[in-house]
Amino acid sequence: MVVIRQDLATRDWTIFSTERSKRPKDFRHEEGKLGSKGKCKDEYVESCPFCKGNEHMTPRELFSIREDGEWLVRVVLNKYPALEIKNFCGPVTRHIKGPYLSMDGIGSHEVIIESPRHNDDLATMDRRNLENVLLTYWHRSVDLSKNEDYQLIIIFRNHGIEAGTSLEHPHSQLIATPFVPGYVRNKLYESQRYFDNFGRCPYCDMIDYELKDRERLVYEDEKYVAFTPYASVVPYNILVLPKKHQANFVEASEEEIRDLASVFKVVLAKLYYLLDNPDYNYVIDSSPTDKSGERHYHWHIEILPRLTTRAGFEIGSGVTINFIFPEDCARHLREVKV
Amino acid sequence: MVVIRQDLATRDWTIFSTERSKRPKDFRHEEGKLGSKGKCKDEYVESCPFCKGNEHMTPRELFSIREDGEWLVRVVLNKYPALEIKNFCGPVTRHIKGPYLSMDGIGSHEVIIESPRHNDDLATMDRRNLENVLLTYWHRSVDLSKNEDYQLIIIFRNHGIEAGTSLEHPHSQLIATPFVPGYVRNKLYESQRYFDNFGRCPYCDMIDYELKDRERLVYEDEKYVAFTPYASVVPYNILVLPKKHQANFVEASEEEIRDLASVFKVVLAKLYYLLDNPDYNYVIDSSPTDKSGERHYHWHIEILPRLTTRAGFEIGSGVTINFIFPEDCARHLREVKV
Repeated sequence: MVVIRQDLATRDWTIFSTERSKRPKDFRHEEGKLGSKGKCKDEYVESCPFCKGNEHMTPRELFSIREDGEWLVRVVLNKYPALEIKNFCGPVTRHIKGPYLSMDGIGSHEVIIESPRHNDDLATMDRRNLENVLLTYWHRSVDLSKNEDYQLIIIFRNHGIEAGTSLEHPHSQLIATPFVPGYVRNKLYESQRYFDNFGRCPYCDMIDYELKDRERLVYEDEKYVAFTPYASVVPYNILVLPKKHQANFVEASEEEIRDLASVFKVVLAKLYYLLDNPDYNYVIDSSPTDKSGERHYHWHIEILPRLTTRAGFEIGSGVTINFIFPEDCARHLREVKV
Repeated sequence: MVVIRQDLATRDWTIFSTERSKRPKDFRHEEGKLGSKGKCKDEYVESCPFCKGNEHMTPRELFSIREDGEWLVRVVLNKYPALEIKNFCGPVTRHIKGPYLSMDGIGSHEVIIESPRHNDDLATMDRRNLENVLLTYWHRSVDLSKNEDYQLIIIFRNHGIEAGTSLEHPHSQLIATPFVPGYVRNKLYESQRYFDNFGRCPYCDMIDYELKDRERLVYEDEKYVAFTPYASVVPYNILVLPKKHQANFVEASEEEIRDLASVFKVVLAKLYYLLDNPDYNYVIDSSPTDKSGERHYHWHIEILPRLTTRAGFEIGSGVTINFIFPEDCARHLREVKV
């Protein structure tokens, strides 16, 4: 039973998914947990549920892209879902206990298996494969956006142990939530205020300035631009945005998603070669499902290499201390030929 | 030169402290960085700037508590400060470049050396020592609150490598910032809204309920209470709060700070024994300096064990997925006899 609880003072929600619940001794430090970066070099691993041939080891398949009957990208439900598919009728309900509010842990938690091959890597795979991964993100988003229970769809990738991955086989994840988190709501408010002041989407203004200034530019083509943001929160923080204003990822056409693969491939490859395959997270930051078309928000992919540790100051203030200017990061990235 | 930059869309600030700036190759994975937990058992380490006898190795001393001429707790400026002491007159200024806003990186970044002994530990040291550490936090807060340039004072502790510490000798840190971060501002807004609705401080309401319900209670005495919050963001998340309403840490009297040592010592020791000296962060969460006395905010110490990894979903949504209910954590903690 998944439950979502709200903090009384901050109104922030926490998801409690206790299926894999642990006892205190399971939390004691796992020696060697963060051991060598040496990864399996085999195309097939017998125990890996995501490898081709092991399809019976995953929960239900929701979507796939196939060629000659063989799958290239595959979407399945997460075996230990953070949120569960609804098995009742009617709306997701909220509950009150004492002064506290909670809600049913309803949502969709999906795994996008990016390749049948265990040793594949998003940064070095064919452009065609990457296109299929992006198209899969898009198809799932379009589909889930139609479900009235879901208010936000978050697509993310955890690459490497420092980024929180638990399975080596290349994969991303998608979580559709039945609420808009305060963190996201506040970002929307701020961009709305910017729009109210200046009559422009702040992301469109950033794009215009970065394309003119070029100091923080990493790469661009006709439709997309990648730059290191002015107030980058981590070293080599990169944003990839459509040049055309679109609030929600599903506003992009199928053709535009195909085109995204070019810039995205270059950016991932540059990071891979510059920093020797760093651990990273990326997130597709998109408006809530009912805010498609809004003029002040602009979907983007945010890439966050995991090169530093978030510590007490960052946790207490929400502010990060960065040790390198984005101008320097962008220059290093531009210099990598891929 | 430290600079603080604001994100155009989110209005969040990032501090750029590039004194220790790195080249790309320095960010490549440091093998063995997260090696064994085995810590130095010696009372004195020749190369440690915080050990007694090595006082010449630290920057300027700002405060100390002494007995018979020997220091027990010592505060020095951070050698690589995130923010710098102002060396000019007049207010901290903001600068505009293109569409972007930045501000001078003015502030105070201090290290609280908690003991002259390298192998001491906050969780197991004498109550007297812990009292001196807390009194030092308080004295520095009172002093810095008088400086009009500082808007927020954050005291925090990074314990263990996973929590972001870089020096083994027991120490905490303090950063006084020349702005209120959006994250903190939003927390204040939410608690203000709660107050406007119910006429009560949300933290006071939490305390009342937790003391009555007792399911999440970890420990209490006459003046303080420790419990695992209803929407705990990590396993064994603990809040320590004064029962009396106080918005800012400096509102506590010297005697009340001395009394805090009892509950705090019990809580740290319980965590230490239950989870075998886990890595953790704690933060003293207090109102901005000019909001002392506000009725809707309530200072507290938030303890966050580092047992899980923040991944893409958490980064993208600001929501955490927790694997254990706070009721279970509180029960485990209550069962530890210290």
